[in-house]
Amino acid sequence: MQKLTVIGLGPGAGLDLTLRAREAIESSDLIVGYTAYIALIRDAFPHKEMVSTGMKKEVDRCRLAVEAAVSGKTTAVVCSGDSGIYGMAGLIYEVAQDYPPIDIEVVPGITAACGGAAVLGAPLTHDFAVISLSDLLTPWEKIERRLRAAAEADFVICLYNPRSRSRADMLRRACDILLAAKGGDTPCGYVKNIGREGQTSVVLSLSQLRDCEDVDMFTTVFIGNEQTKLLNGKLVTPRGYLQREE
Amino acid sequence: MQKLTVIGLGPGAGLDLTLRAREAIESSDLIVGYTAYIALIRDAFPHKEMVSTGMKKEVDRCRLAVEAAVSGKTTAVVCSGDSGIYGMAGLIYEVAQDYPPIDIEVVPGITAACGGAAVLGAPLTHDFAVISLSDLLTPWEKIERRLRAAAEADFVICLYNPRSRSRADMLRRACDILLAAKGGDTPCGYVKNIGREGQTSVVLSLSQLRDCEDVDMFTTVFIGNEQTKLLNGKLVTPRGYLQREE
Repeated sequence: MQKLTVIGLGPGAGLDLTLRAREAIESSDLIVGYTAYIALIRDAFPHKEMVSTGMKKEVDRCRLAVEAAVSGKTTAVVCSGDSGIYGMAGLIYEVAQDYPPIDIEVVPGITAACGGAAVLGAPLTHDFAVISLSDLLTPWEKIERRLRAAAEADFVICLYNPRSRSRADMLRRACDILLAAKGGDTPCGYVKNIGREGQTSVVLSLSQLRDCEDVDMFTTVFIGNEQTKLLNGKLVTPRGYLQREE
Repeated sequence: MQKLTVIGLGPGAGLDLTLRAREAIESSDLIVGYTAYIALIRDAFPHKEMVSTGMKKEVDRCRLAVEAAVSGKTTAVVCSGDSGIYGMAGLIYEVAQDYPPIDIEVVPGITAACGGAAVLGAPLTHDFAVISLSDLLTPWEKIERRLRAAAEADFVICLYNPRSRSRADMLRRACDILLAAKGGDTPCGYVKNIGREGQTSVVLSLSQLRDCEDVDMFTTVFIGNEQTKLLNGKLVTPRGYLQREE
């Protein structure tokens, strides 16, 4: 059967690429992806046919890939981070419903939650919630409900798409919701451009995060739970092994 | 400065290993890990010195690794999945407080949430919560609170450590909490032995999951949100791209 693979490239498509992802790219005839992600792998696979499409062209991109696979080309769709977490895997399954059956495989990648946590220390060593602050596809009321629930149940929280030019105040609004249940001194952190040129990370309090103007769409934000603390500048949520021994 | 790396091996330590993880193992003098994880990489790195310790020996294992690094050996601690999600990264930072300063690096890996989701389809394409059902280190009341909050705020839910011999009824108790907020026909799935020999996956309803005896500690469980559906046997949570176009 015709084959379509949806590949997660990890944060920077470099050292965090898995062997499975690399092999899947190498065994594909055509690679399809968002312009910025194709740029990340262009030089590493110079002889591959690649097609890139722009932002907000997700449906077109997936149709193009499915149609290529149906027509007989072994095709791969590449995504930044993991292909399943806010990635194209779901849309590929949906779009493929309109075409003759093809064999779809999802190849996971290192998502920004894991990649960013590794830079900051170990904030996700306990139960956590991942929430996107983008309201392009989700009503803001639902995002607020999730923020409130995650704060009240003491999850560590990881925010994707925390702030964009057109939604400059969303991080502040999100922090205000979290501050209703969490202390202003709750340890937080963020990482920009994970695994890419210009990677930077900052550790700060929830109150400081609320007023932070430095966060953008290429940033992943982490908000600690009641146990999270700073150890030599690293953000760490103890799992409880040491505390059990005391 | 002496170097200690905490490495996530991905689900099976095979094709899902990243290039960064492989290089970190190769550049270490000593590899430390839980017996079952050392066994996964023993054959791939035949000339490396490796030390394994048993279950519930997490603190001893981390002390051994930190002491080796302090003594001058470039040391790596290996974890299944990601090193930061219920992995050893947090404990390494805690234990290292008792010793002279060393350079600690966390190398992320594909966690079971991403690896299992890829097998089932694309259940995590929207906001999700990750919860461990093990009450060895977390009071059961707190786990219940998190389950309730995640269900009420319509997160997709991913369960780690869902059931063990000594806690045979915890998955059932967790499902009962979820069923108070979610329909019994909510699409769910689980994957056993992700990326390893004997990998199996099952798609079923939340009611069926409640009474499922097949789930064990090597299983990762996924519970859909209100949008999650089955497409040709795959568990998919639409992100909303297609729905926006309608």
